[in-house]
Amino acid sequence: MSARAGRLIVFEGVEGAGKTTQLDRLSARFGRAGIAWVRFREPGGTAAGDRIRQILLDPGAAMDARTEALLFMASRAELVATAVRPALSGGAVVLLDRFFLSTYAYQIDGRGLAEPDVRAANAAATGGLVPDLTLLLSMPSGEGLARAQQRGPSDRMERSGPAFHARVEAAFARFVTPAWQASHPEAGRVVVVDAAGSPEDVEQRVVAALTRHLSDLRAAMERVA
Amino acid sequence: MSARAGRLIVFEGVEGAGKTTQLDRLSARFGRAGIAWVRFREPGGTAAGDRIRQILLDPGAAMDARTEALLFMASRAELVATAVRPALSGGAVVLLDRFFLSTYAYQIDGRGLAEPDVRAANAAATGGLVPDLTLLLSMPSGEGLARAQQRGPSDRMERSGPAFHARVEAAFARFVTPAWQASHPEAGRVVVVDAAGSPEDVEQRVVAALTRHLSDLRAAMERVA
Repeated sequence: MSARAGRLIVFEGVEGAGKTTQLDRLSARFGRAGIAWVRFREPGGTAAGDRIRQILLDPGAAMDARTEALLFMASRAELVATAVRPALSGGAVVLLDRFFLSTYAYQIDGRGLAEPDVRAANAAATGGLVPDLTLLLSMPSGEGLARAQQRGPSDRMERSGPAFHARVEAAFARFVTPAWQASHPEAGRVVVVDAAGSPEDVEQRVVAALTRHLSDLRAAMERVA
Repeated sequence: MSARAGRLIVFEGVEGAGKTTQLDRLSARFGRAGIAWVRFREPGGTAAGDRIRQILLDPGAAMDARTEALLFMASRAELVATAVRPALSGGAVVLLDRFFLSTYAYQIDGRGLAEPDVRAANAAATGGLVPDLTLLLSMPSGEGLARAQQRGPSDRMERSGPAFHARVEAAFARFVTPAWQASHPEAGRVVVVDAAGSPEDVEQRVVAALTRHLSDLRAAMERVA
């Protein structure tokens, strides 16, 4: 790939779907292939963003759904302006562990905020940055939550209850439909990756999706396949 | 006034224009008149908001202008949902030390953010709450800043430089024009109050503006005039 062809690749999915594991594997693979990459997680990833993250994930913090959504947006604005755009300009592949589809799923479907409000605030936060590809790791939310809870104490988002997480799961399923993507051009291309099975199985599906949709990564990826 | 006639009254103006002094005087006057009131300042006024305020006013915090704007919006969403709307529903006069005209002035004119983005994010934060009256305490920004700096060490907003504060001053002047108010219905009625002279002089102008524009407060106010 060209040294100046920065690419923005986003991993999305319910809690416990395996995003972190797959990002670990993909970034290692990029490293072996000589592809420059940087990786960030939302919320956080910057000085201001990490302070915002502490407020958002504090299990003792009570806040209105609008406040929560706007705090995510503030963290995102900082990440996009100070980290994502500079890395893309430098030609790196930027890997994001969640981006605005999470906001849409959690805040609109999960919390019940108005879609036009959330989309408008998100446009303000991102300045219209469109991902090149979003991989949705698909897993029933109950199964994912059970996995996430094995990792340790729940954070504030994880404690929002099974009905909330079922709404989130349904939202993610909607985002991969052509009708939804046609009416939400800010999302770019969103493809589903089955997250069932071993990490090795899922990794093969991730790599297949990437090389199918981002042809300029294919040659470099195939050298280390 | 009716026990259920909540009113939202906002004080705006450049740093050092005397908002706090006038809010002290007006709330004391409301107390003598038997008018129930609550008072908040932006950013902050809630548990989450005070944590956001610490990030915003920290002189050591560097952040993108979009992040700053969205943090103000998050603090505002929390204040409106958990404090302002409940107080209005209970029939109180809510006094705000700054509201979204400050965001418009500081973020759009001061920092150069796009007006549609800021207005959209603000609509998400406020849920469309329109003040009953905004009093703009008018003072040249240089004079106000000099006053503010006598109070103690500058915060991050105060350190943004004289050109920034001159743009803010010009924005506030625009907000009191009929043309601007007609195209920004979310602002409600905005009136200018000359902030020059003694605190007693300014207080008389504040009371005159309130009784002129909020007729249901007049009888109660005149009892203690």
